[in-house]
Amino acid sequence: MKHKVQYYETDMMGVVHHSNYIRWMEEARIDYMDRIGYPYRRMEAEGVLCPVKSLQVSYLKPCTFGDEVEISTKVTGFNGVIISMAYDMRVGGEQVFAGTSEHVFLTREGRFVRMKKTMPEFCAAVERQMEQQEPANASEKE
Amino acid sequence: MKHKVQYYETDMMGVVHHSNYIRWMEEARIDYMDRIGYPYRRMEAEGVLCPVKSLQVSYLKPCTFGDEVEISTKVTGFNGVIISMAYDMRVGGEQVFAGTSEHVFLTREGRFVRMKKTMPEFCAAVERQMEQQEPANASEKE
Amino acid sequence: MKHKVQYYETDMMGVVHHSNYIRWMEEARIDYMDRIGYPYRRMEAEGVLCPVKSLQVSYLKPCTFGDEVEISTKVTGFNGVIISMAYDMRVGGEQVFAGTSEHVFLTREGRFVRMKKTMPEFCAAVERQMEQQEPANASEKE
Amino acid sequence: MKHKVQYYETDMMGVVHHSNYIRWMEEARIDYMDRIGYPYRRMEAEGVLCPVKSLQVSYLKPCTFGDEVEISTKVTGFNGVIISMAYDMRVGGEQVFAGTSEHVFLTREGRFVRMKKTMPEFCAAVERQMEQQEPANASEKE
Repeated sequence: MKHKVQYYETDMMGVVHHSNYIRWMEEARIDYMDRIGYPYRRMEAEGVLCPVKSLQVSYLKPCTFGDEVEISTKVTGFNGVIISMAYDMRVGGEQVFAGTSEHVFLTREGRFVRMKKTMPEFCAAVERQMEQQEPANASEKE
Repeated sequence: MKHKVQYYETDMMGVVHHSNYIRWMEEARIDYMDRIGYPYRRMEAEGVLCPVKSLQVSYLKPCTFGDEVEISTKVTGFNGVIISMAYDMRVGGEQVFAGTSEHVFLTREGRFVRMKKTMPEFCAAVERQMEQQEPANASEKE
Repeated sequence: MKHKVQYYETDMMGVVHHSNYIRWMEEARIDYMDRIGYPYRRMEAEGVLCPVKSLQVSYLKPCTFGDEVEISTKVTGFNGVIISMAYDMRVGGEQVFAGTSEHVFLTREGRFVRMKKTMPEFCAAVERQMEQQEPANASEKE
Repeated sequence: MKHKVQYYETDMMGVVHHSNYIRWMEEARIDYMDRIGYPYRRMEAEGVLCPVKSLQVSYLKPCTFGDEVEISTKVTGFNGVIISMAYDMRVGGEQVFAGTSEHVFLTREGRFVRMKKTMPEFCAAVERQMEQQEPANASEKE
């Protein structure tokens, strides 16, 4: 997917504020779920939240207002309880950012959800995508 | 109340991005409700939301990272259905921003709430504050 | 232009936080300038900033995560010193937001710029667009 | 330092959006630099930027609107070229977040700066603080 950098995403360094990449990781996850046919909106409507457990990110090059950021995402691990994802962001082919995230699945009340039991359709969709995801950037196929 | 301007609130113009003043108006409203003894958290816990209906704002001077913004707020009108508020923001005594907002009261389902019936204690607290609010900046009295 | 509502733009009311519409107004202005062939990036590169002087906005309906917001923008007044714009936002054809903004033109040092003298090409582009802009939503022509 | 959670920092999960903790880490760094007597504003005024190179963060418990977050920060490594910091966030004594960040020092043109040569006073202030920083939370001493 692509994200066009907005003016309001810059800071007084003249480049994108680093917190926005964390938001773009979320955009990319939402896009990933749309692509596998199980929108995040549906997951929440069915009572499961998928909050972030941890992040590891590296800022490689600044990017700025007007840049078009190409974001690729893949699932790197999923055991039905924790899902791990990796992100690669590029501007004009050059990598600007790399990151990974881990997520858990919770009910609205905060209890852990075993996805294999609760949402087998989601699990199947993720596994199908994982098999296909070489190369990582699904948007290259569009 | 005071708001210390954060680095992440600036943009590439080198000053605060204009959308943040809208957020500071919200901070000031929350602070107002704390001061009158009816925290917004309590209002929501009791089932009433108070979304923004309209805003009118003027940006008078830029402010930037590290500035301490003094925000004063007052209720300028309240009929139990719509509440109107005015905001004045200053840095070092000089006005940087002026604004007004209007709000309605809704249930979680989106139905209008008549506050005089539903939350008479809130109405009484607002009215008490309106009588006292010369000068506007209640924090000067603290 | 269209804006897909992001999860990070929602708040605990379950809908878009009102400050984000102010940011979308900016997105729409940037898009407007792209459309008239004078990108805002170019304006700043040539030494002219165009900060917001005032806003007047009405929130008509909430919108939320996943909604696709159709934003139309037009210039409603331009005298070379102040530019006035109007915004209309719709989800599924239904209006959710209306707003106007006024902007000035400044050098990096904060001095007012007379655009007719400094950027006649920009002025001509705006005037050309104003003549064409019935209907307001240029994106309908795309 | 303390950060009072704002309504605009929540999302539709009903808790703070995870990108805000990244912003609070920045608040805590700025506060750290104020405390050691070398404000970040001064560093930038003297021509040195200190962008984020990497982040590693863990979200331990959600926090929400109205919570008062106690943030402690310490420098865990500094060789004059890269500075490493650690963050601990607590609400009511219970840890909600842990993170680390690495930063480099750059000129406005993007060249690396050797701080020992360029800003010896900053280096001395950091080293002084590192010696003192048991316990980590300097604000406990205030």
